[in-house]
Amino acid sequence: MSDPFAFDLAATDGAARAGTWSTPHGAVPTPAFMPVGTAGSVKGVMPEQLAAIGSTQILANTYHLALRPGADVVAELGGLHRMMAWDGPILTDSGGFQVFSLAALATMTEEGVRFTSHIDGAKMDLTPEDSVDVQAQLGADVMMCLDECPPLPCEPERMQAAVDRTTRWAQRCRDQWDARDRRTAGGDPQALFGIVQGGVDPAMRERSARGLLPLEFPGYAIGGLSVGEAPSEMYRTLEATTPFLPVEKPRYLMGVGTPTDLLHAVMRGVDLFDCVMPTRNGRNGSVFTSAGTLKIKNAAHARDDSPIDLSCDCPACKRGGPGSFSRGTLRHLFLAGEMLAPILLSLHNLRFYHRLLAELRAAIVRGEARAFVAAELAKWGGGANVAAVNPPPGDPTAVPIRP
Amino acid sequence: MSDPFAFDLAATDGAARAGTWSTPHGAVPTPAFMPVGTAGSVKGVMPEQLAAIGSTQILANTYHLALRPGADVVAELGGLHRMMAWDGPILTDSGGFQVFSLAALATMTEEGVRFTSHIDGAKMDLTPEDSVDVQAQLGADVMMCLDECPPLPCEPERMQAAVDRTTRWAQRCRDQWDARDRRTAGGDPQALFGIVQGGVDPAMRERSARGLLPLEFPGYAIGGLSVGEAPSEMYRTLEATTPFLPVEKPRYLMGVGTPTDLLHAVMRGVDLFDCVMPTRNGRNGSVFTSAGTLKIKNAAHARDDSPIDLSCDCPACKRGGPGSFSRGTLRHLFLAGEMLAPILLSLHNLRFYHRLLAELRAAIVRGEARAFVAAELAKWGGGANVAAVNPPPGDPTAVPIRP
Repeated sequence: MSDPFAFDLAATDGAARAGTWSTPHGAVPTPAFMPVGTAGSVKGVMPEQLAAIGSTQILANTYHLALRPGADVVAELGGLHRMMAWDGPILTDSGGFQVFSLAALATMTEEGVRFTSHIDGAKMDLTPEDSVDVQAQLGADVMMCLDECPPLPCEPERMQAAVDRTTRWAQRCRDQWDARDRRTAGGDPQALFGIVQGGVDPAMRERSARGLLPLEFPGYAIGGLSVGEAPSEMYRTLEATTPFLPVEKPRYLMGVGTPTDLLHAVMRGVDLFDCVMPTRNGRNGSVFTSAGTLKIKNAAHARDDSPIDLSCDCPACKRGGPGSFSRGTLRHLFLAGEMLAPILLSLHNLRFYHRLLAELRAAIVRGEARAFVAAELAKWGGGANVAAVNPPPGDPTAVPIRP
Repeated sequence: MSDPFAFDLAATDGAARAGTWSTPHGAVPTPAFMPVGTAGSVKGVMPEQLAAIGSTQILANTYHLALRPGADVVAELGGLHRMMAWDGPILTDSGGFQVFSLAALATMTEEGVRFTSHIDGAKMDLTPEDSVDVQAQLGADVMMCLDECPPLPCEPERMQAAVDRTTRWAQRCRDQWDARDRRTAGGDPQALFGIVQGGVDPAMRERSARGLLPLEFPGYAIGGLSVGEAPSEMYRTLEATTPFLPVEKPRYLMGVGTPTDLLHAVMRGVDLFDCVMPTRNGRNGSVFTSAGTLKIKNAAHARDDSPIDLSCDCPACKRGGPGSFSRGTLRHLFLAGEMLAPILLSLHNLRFYHRLLAELRAAIVRGEARAFVAAELAKWGGGANVAAVNPPPGDPTAVPIRP
């Protein structure tokens, strides 16, 4: 029987990869970005709209859905694909990261995590086995192992303990996944990805990767980055991590990042991304453009009849043609508290991310990835679309792009 | 030159009319309902989505737009059609009604209205001439006369004074409209509708209509209803008013109403409607169905995998087919505070309104309007979709339908 989660490399360009990742809900050209649908919805965006702007897969958060409406309710309502009215691939995280960022009184033992719901104060447990069972009920195409993600900076002893616990938990997740016949509660094939931890220490990243590889997961995630370290540290860590991951499996960088982060990560061999940035920034009035970021609420836009970005084909910009929304209109809608403003800006930013990775994929296929990335970084200018890249992105040679 | 606002009667059935109303931005089959886009946006709904569910025209509120972003800004941004990315007909109200419902310290003299902005406390004046000028800047296809709409109940003397002032102001609006060559600030043909006032007193309604008719407006609105009177009083008032309006002009019942109201009003000769009810109720989780209203937040829906209405073809229901959202999912999205819930329920309720009037139009053409209305009212059941109809709608004969 053929692998329902096969990953086929179409081309490589240095460390950068152009691939096609199969799932039971369709194939994804990689590199690719997943919009975040935390509670079962990409905020304000209809599934048809996601498909129209080039979204191929969505991420949903296990922690939120397990607390509300509950994984049993999701299963009873037909699973996540049915609930989200999304027939493409869906990925769920393990819930562990949100336990520590959102729940009260979270404590961790070798058995698992105990915490108090931030919604109703209920005391709850999440073991590696629970995480797999809950994610099987949610029914996404891909689930993630429960891991330990220590905050940075982190003492070497603590980091090694977290890496080793992550490896032991990965084994328990894999056993539970096998016990479930690697299927969702609804009976569909479901993949389980392992997560490489290790902070910004190359030796720890190697230790983590070597611990997970014998478990032969259908894909590998890189976790524990974009948690406060400098972007250059993240890029160096990626460079030191991806060589230890199998070539024939997809690589997913969790929770990252800015457009600049995406370019640098793809150049270091990453295939998949998720981040709240395009939608959250859109809801706050901050948009990415081919010439840098802008804040739509600024008074300068009040009487500006031009679209956010004349070169953008999103539903808000429409390259400035009929049916496009002007900057002045979008500013007005924001100030008037109209929902349409965050909706339009979320669509615009998501389209920016999808178009960027589609163009980068084409450049990889052409063998011109390095030039494409350098040109994009130069266009965006200092501080544009970068959110604290260090060293500055104005000089494309300043952040080494792995050849 | 042909009339850009011609109204052609396709069929009548008793007092009910099936028509086609021309505008510079396309023709509208009537009876028809206008979604309300108060501040330049139907809350949460994209223009493409409106067109897809059968919206043919939109209303926008002059008071809100004049205060923010300002009529001059709207004009500079290309007018309302460009701002709202809506190429179909748009109608603006005069701003007078909102002055008295929203502004602080509103006072009225023969000259006009003086009030304080509810947004920034600025003191402002609105005369009949101002209202025409502001609406010409907004640039809708149709503008409304500034009128006086006294709250009900109202002493006969005060009502007569309001009716007569409304007539004098209508003359001033008409003069200003003529002075502007009956065009928007952008140079497009723009209609001006007169507004019949008179509360629930048939004699006052007749007086108001007779005062306005010599001004030969391209259309006539019926204002001052659905302001607290019983629905049966409103229906009786409509019955006493429409016979005084010209057959060859559209008749617009302002700010009304429930689905039941729409049916009764069409049976009494009304062609056009606007109301916040479908969108506001949708945002609050209340939906109209072929079997009555329901509150989507009720716990009964938590694990319900069926759509709001199996017979509904809106983007949320899709007749229960692929891509439809279940009641359980919609309830979850509401409780989780997800924008998608109010969006989907707004689309559903608007589609309910549009489909209802399209089906009623077809029934008028077939000469079966009376039977259609009776069947709909019976289907919805006591208290369903009716919001305090009196006498009860369970008995279709209890509210006399004008033959």
